[in-house]
Amino acid sequence: MNKLIIEARINEYAGREHNPHVPWSPEEIAETATHCREAGASVVHFHARADDGSPAHDVALYADIIQRIKALSDILIHPTLGAFTHDGDTAARIQPILELAVDPQTCPHFAPLDMGSVNIDAYDSATKTFRSDEAVYINTTKTLLHFAEQLSTTTVRPYASLWNVGFTRQFLAFIESGAIAEPAYASLIMTGDDLPAAHPGTDQGLDAHTAFIPKERNIHWTAMNHGGDLLPLLPKIISEGGHISIGLGDWAYIDTIPYVSTPTNADIVNHTATLARSMGREVATPSEAATLLGLD
Amino acid sequence: MNKLIIEARINEYAGREHNPHVPWSPEEIAETATHCREAGASVVHFHARADDGSPAHDVALYADIIQRIKALSDILIHPTLGAFTHDGDTAARIQPILELAVDPQTCPHFAPLDMGSVNIDAYDSATKTFRSDEAVYINTTKTLLHFAEQLSTTTVRPYASLWNVGFTRQFLAFIESGAIAEPAYASLIMTGDDLPAAHPGTDQGLDAHTAFIPKERNIHWTAMNHGGDLLPLLPKIISEGGHISIGLGDWAYIDTIPYVSTPTNADIVNHTATLARSMGREVATPSEAATLLGLD
Repeated sequence: MNKLIIEARINEYAGREHNPHVPWSPEEIAETATHCREAGASVVHFHARADDGSPAHDVALYADIIQRIKALSDILIHPTLGAFTHDGDTAARIQPILELAVDPQTCPHFAPLDMGSVNIDAYDSATKTFRSDEAVYINTTKTLLHFAEQLSTTTVRPYASLWNVGFTRQFLAFIESGAIAEPAYASLIMTGDDLPAAHPGTDQGLDAHTAFIPKERNIHWTAMNHGGDLLPLLPKIISEGGHISIGLGDWAYIDTIPYVSTPTNADIVNHTATLARSMGREVATPSEAATLLGLD
Repeated sequence: MNKLIIEARINEYAGREHNPHVPWSPEEIAETATHCREAGASVVHFHARADDGSPAHDVALYADIIQRIKALSDILIHPTLGAFTHDGDTAARIQPILELAVDPQTCPHFAPLDMGSVNIDAYDSATKTFRSDEAVYINTTKTLLHFAEQLSTTTVRPYASLWNVGFTRQFLAFIESGAIAEPAYASLIMTGDDLPAAHPGTDQGLDAHTAFIPKERNIHWTAMNHGGDLLPLLPKIISEGGHISIGLGDWAYIDTIPYVSTPTNADIVNHTATLARSMGREVATPSEAATLLGLD
């Protein structure tokens, strides 16, 4: 079985009210990436954040963060593309990645392609009311074909984010048509009780994703649970040959990991790596992950 | 096990180049509905069409069709709501249903709620190119809550169209929150090779839907395969207690049914009903379907 690629999802737009170890500043993000690398992560996914933690979309800030990460370790870099930014303007959404790609000091390794459109409203399962009601994340086929074409002019590889089976079929159509090359990397998205957008973070939710990843294709899948605890699924993912995307960006992981009540991102990565090795699956270095995912 | 509800999906926007029996005019639609009723259908789903078969959205045309159907039989009536019509304007999309609901002669029994947003571009699996690239079917949570609230002021029941697992979770949130009442009726959408939007029309595609319909809820699910042949799945659906939505609106069904090369909608319904009875499952009359689905 392939070595396990652990992707540290270190911050997303998480606050610090549940776990203060969410990194926001460029220094914190770069330091966290390095600690995660030491703990076994081969990929880091991050969102730039302002000093107060609010979302930040400035290209110079992304450039600063990537330079800092690269200066400290060889971890593979996967920034966000910006979902609701730029009012959905296609060219504007991919432009920052293209700018970053020009300079080896700032060039990321992956950029996410969410392979369709999806409502991602927040639901309060306790009060049974919606916290938002107009969040439609729109990615037209035209936009996605444009992103894929533009990325193919750079060394940045597409990272396919799959929210449901329709996204997976769109992803497979892109592979068939040559818009996305193999080996391909795909994230099977699961979401917690307060975000009905994707599959639930359960055995069934994962099975209903993996059933549609054809074994004859050279596709590496990784599993994540945004707004939910991924730990119960780790043994299943590890034994099925999947990869793991996990971190404080998705869940605070309070009192879930042995010996540490309020874990850092690196603690979560270390726990994941230790579990994998205990199950007989080795953990990939960034260099090994790059080979598996066709970045060489 | 509950009796089988057969819904005849008689036309959608299908042309006649593959099968000339697709009904377009009000007369043809009403006659087809009656023949399907005689063959075992308890629900008819239709789209109004102009004389040349092009999509038509006039409320008066829907009123005419529904009056004609009601004059000929007791089949339950499920018109389309209009997907890409009215530029997505929420009030405008539900308004025709509300107008039709005022008069018992024109009041439909169901109106579809597509429980989220989804790309529904056409893909040519032969040439591996997309035939369209900007078809995003947008249904915000706010719109859907508005539809559900408006329908609750009428006798028209919501018919939940579920394109993927995220739609199913949204549907369950609506039931939990009281926006949709039980017994609830949901269509598990599968789509053919040239429409990657929903689950594939396979055992796995259906299983990945049904796994998320909680048995403890009073939910009736029906399965459809738009742009694909549903016949291979009929025994599985019948034995699992699901209902069946099938017709020339989804697939031409040439040379698939015994003794008839170019079947009518009623031929397809008859084949479905015969199969169900041969497997020991009775077929519901419209009156029995109305009781199962809470229309009484």
